[in-house]
Amino acid sequence: MVGNSDTADGIRDFTITENIKDGDDSKWKPTTAIPDSILRLPAPLSFFRILRFLKTQKRTGWLDRGVSATTAESISDHMYRMAVMAMLAPAEENLDSRKCAIIALVHDLAEAVVGDLTPDDPVGPDEKHRRERITMEYLADQIRPLNSAAADELYTCYMEYENSATPEARFVKDLDKFEFLLQTTEYQFDVLNGVEDKSVELSDFMAARSKIKHPLVKQWLSQLEDERKVMFTANST
Amino acid sequence: MVGNSDTADGIRDFTITENIKDGDDSKWKPTTAIPDSILRLPAPLSFFRILRFLKTQKRTGWLDRGVSATTAESISDHMYRMAVMAMLAPAEENLDSRKCAIIALVHDLAEAVVGDLTPDDPVGPDEKHRRERITMEYLADQIRPLNSAAADELYTCYMEYENSATPEARFVKDLDKFEFLLQTTEYQFDVLNGVEDKSVELSDFMAARSKIKHPLVKQWLSQLEDERKVMFTANST
Repeated sequence: MVGNSDTADGIRDFTITENIKDGDDSKWKPTTAIPDSILRLPAPLSFFRILRFLKTQKRTGWLDRGVSATTAESISDHMYRMAVMAMLAPAEENLDSRKCAIIALVHDLAEAVVGDLTPDDPVGPDEKHRRERITMEYLADQIRPLNSAAADELYTCYMEYENSATPEARFVKDLDKFEFLLQTTEYQFDVLNGVEDKSVELSDFMAARSKIKHPLVKQWLSQLEDERKVMFTANST
Repeated sequence: MVGNSDTADGIRDFTITENIKDGDDSKWKPTTAIPDSILRLPAPLSFFRILRFLKTQKRTGWLDRGVSATTAESISDHMYRMAVMAMLAPAEENLDSRKCAIIALVHDLAEAVVGDLTPDDPVGPDEKHRRERITMEYLADQIRPLNSAAADELYTCYMEYENSATPEARFVKDLDKFEFLLQTTEYQFDVLNGVEDKSVELSDFMAARSKIKHPLVKQWLSQLEDERKVMFTANST
């Protein structure tokens, strides 16, 4: 398959499954996953239209557990809150908070094309990272003739994150987990409050709490744990 | 009314209408619009939980025109794409692209508390801006004891945007309009492609095209106009 159908080009008209089926792993390319109706556009319009898939794709983890499609957050919803959290990066540790925000904005950007793959998907972690990396290369290459500094920022911040290469990247890695734990908790509260269906079971997601390393993000997690105790104790009778 | 119900605290359990009804305009305060279940939390957890309302609130303009609640973008979806667009701010004009991204991230942040008011709402523009400004003051005050630089960044970047006070703020104002025009076009394409209902009529939203001033954003608009011609001509037979 080269390219995708022009129908419904605003909505992701290809599925992760189709990408996986698409020959063997090593043949996957961004241009096979991006609809023809976008591939034929000039940059940066093509890039901006690809970004829409971050709005239209809800995060897989929630959908797989039965969170309703209307309330399940989008990939960009997740990156947005992380980016605002990143503004609180502590300057006294010489963390550049604006750079942290940019890393948060780009860290999952490749999912616009690759999809939000989870450990349950047949695509392994190495192939997932390969797809994301070549997608970011592709997007940076689209932007480079127009604005080489922006292309470098896009790709460099992504690679810093992937390689945990800088203190900023490592801080944002913790924000990724903390934002996920907070959103997990909020859906659990929604279940308590009867807003989400009782069948939505997310407690195993909280295992990510042990992976948070930065002292400040640990403090935030401690506030969240306190609130979890309050809410779950109040609702356990 | 002081505070809001604790039920369904993850979801906005108050409506713009309730806020409007809530005594006369001049009495509106952020603390009357934020649920009690969040007001009692310590910062920054309270701030992070407030940010969720940017995910759960879909942009009013789309809902009012019948875009389905599942595909209507959230407020944070809109700010996310603007912030990535802001990375393309031209350095040769001495625009600081990272600062532009931060301005994009905060420019509608107050809507988490105030709601996404439109010209059709009975709240006038002056009162709307007053509510947004005191909300940003409130949020910055919550953050200040923890991180005064972050509090200043939050409030200063918001005020710069509100007052069109810097070249960065003026650039981001154009991004706000362009992102809206692009999203309008994408929903119109969805209608053409049968993904959104034919009753969704957005053509008057395109009037915002005349307000874009920055030459680079005008170039992007020109690409969008070309693509609109292609799509609407192909579908007019």
